[in-house]
Amino acid sequence: MRRMPYVNIKVTREKEPVTPEQKQQLIKGVTDLLQNVLGKNPKTTVVVIDEVETDNWGIAGETVTERRKRGE
Amino acid sequence: MRRMPYVNIKVTREKEPVTPEQKQQLIKGVTDLLQNVLGKNPKTTVVVIDEVETDNWGIAGETVTERRKRGE
Amino acid sequence: MRRMPYVNIKVTREKEPVTPEQKQQLIKGVTDLLQNVLGKNPKTTVVVIDEVETDNWGIAGETVTERRKRGE
Amino acid sequence: MRRMPYVNIKVTREKEPVTPEQKQQLIKGVTDLLQNVLGKNPKTTVVVIDEVETDNWGIAGETVTERRKRGE
Amino acid sequence: MRRMPYVNIKVTREKEPVTPEQKQQLIKGVTDLLQNVLGKNPKTTVVVIDEVETDNWGIAGETVTERRKRGE
Amino acid sequence: MRRMPYVNIKVTREKEPVTPEQKQQLIKGVTDLLQNVLGKNPKTTVVVIDEVETDNWGIAGETVTERRKRGE
Repeated sequence: MRRMPYVNIKVTREKEPVTPEQKQQLIKGVTDLLQNVLGKNPKTTVVVIDEVETDNWGIAGETVTERRKRGE
Repeated sequence: MRRMPYVNIKVTREKEPVTPEQKQQLIKGVTDLLQNVLGKNPKTTVVVIDEVETDNWGIAGETVTERRKRGE
Repeated sequence: MRRMPYVNIKVTREKEPVTPEQKQQLIKGVTDLLQNVLGKNPKTTVVVIDEVETDNWGIAGETVTERRKRGE
Repeated sequence: MRRMPYVNIKVTREKEPVTPEQKQQLIKGVTDLLQNVLGKNPKTTVVVIDEVETDNWGIAGETVTERRKRGE
Repeated sequence: MRRMPYVNIKVTREKEPVTPEQKQQLIKGVTDLLQNVLGKNPKTTVVVIDEVETDNWGIAGETVTERRKRGE
Repeated sequence: MRRMPYVNIKVTREKEPVTPEQKQQLIKGVTDLLQNVLGKNPKTTVVVIDEVETDNWGIAGETVTERRKRGE
């Protein structure tokens, strides 16, 4: 059974950027996963990646920037 | 009957940028559409446009950057 | 110039539901708008509509449910 | 390098539902993919799946419900 | 300086539901927070709450449903 | 009862930027609010802030850029 899938991946933007090759791997990997698990037509699978500054990402009540300063 | 609408439009950021005039047209057009179809009060209609790098947008298992290289 | 668009429309779920015909009108209208303003290929335009309970939608610090009780 | 990932997967809700086992496979698969490609700590990887009614999903200007009626 | 804010809160739907009163508290609390920290006009602050089934929420590679079975 | 929360805050990017300290206050404030109202474990609370250009934000059918020109 075909389904229409849309996937949004958000990751923090760190000192080592996510390379175009890694983005291509993520997009290919997610599309294959949806096809394998749900039998979806990969032609209509849309994937959008958002890179988010560490100042703009919080976990456990503090920004990732603060956590990185402590080496976490 | 009034409804509260929120609309998010994501488009790829291509060589020719989306101009401020086009953004204004999209925002006006979507707001009018919601008013015409659903009778919504346009005052509370919020529209947010996200422009996404072609490296970060995938369809059919590959990035739009790769598709553009092949002229698609 | 072709672009890949994705649109998400969120509206409150009120006593009078949004009918399938209205949903079809919204989807057609947004797709046409993107084609007219940005010259996009409508084939790859994806639109997702979310209907949100009035308890779950807040504006100006209170739920829409509360506003409806006051006739707003 | 660790990154904080958040993934949202939207799929249409069709006659054959997505089973809990399939959801578990999607969540495991995406988490593994992010770890393999980006070296992320899987502990902080969050995945949210949304199932969307076919009336509420549009592609190419029409609802998926309409497309299903034509056998597409 | 006024800013336009939009906030989306996603929480798992557990056995004890989030009550309308708790939703009202979340909406009021977030709106006040944005006003206090950023000086925003609360009139234009929109908050949308999504409740997500535990089958549809994954962390660390498994669904919350599975974690709940183990008492986590 | 613990719940998994994810919060996304979108605000317009104005001339005076949102400072890292304000972002930290927003993240801490939202995390505390969720813990106080819903009893959530703050460790798994994720907050993502998006700053949106005023050209890309529309309300009442026009961009925030246009409204700012009129002093609104």
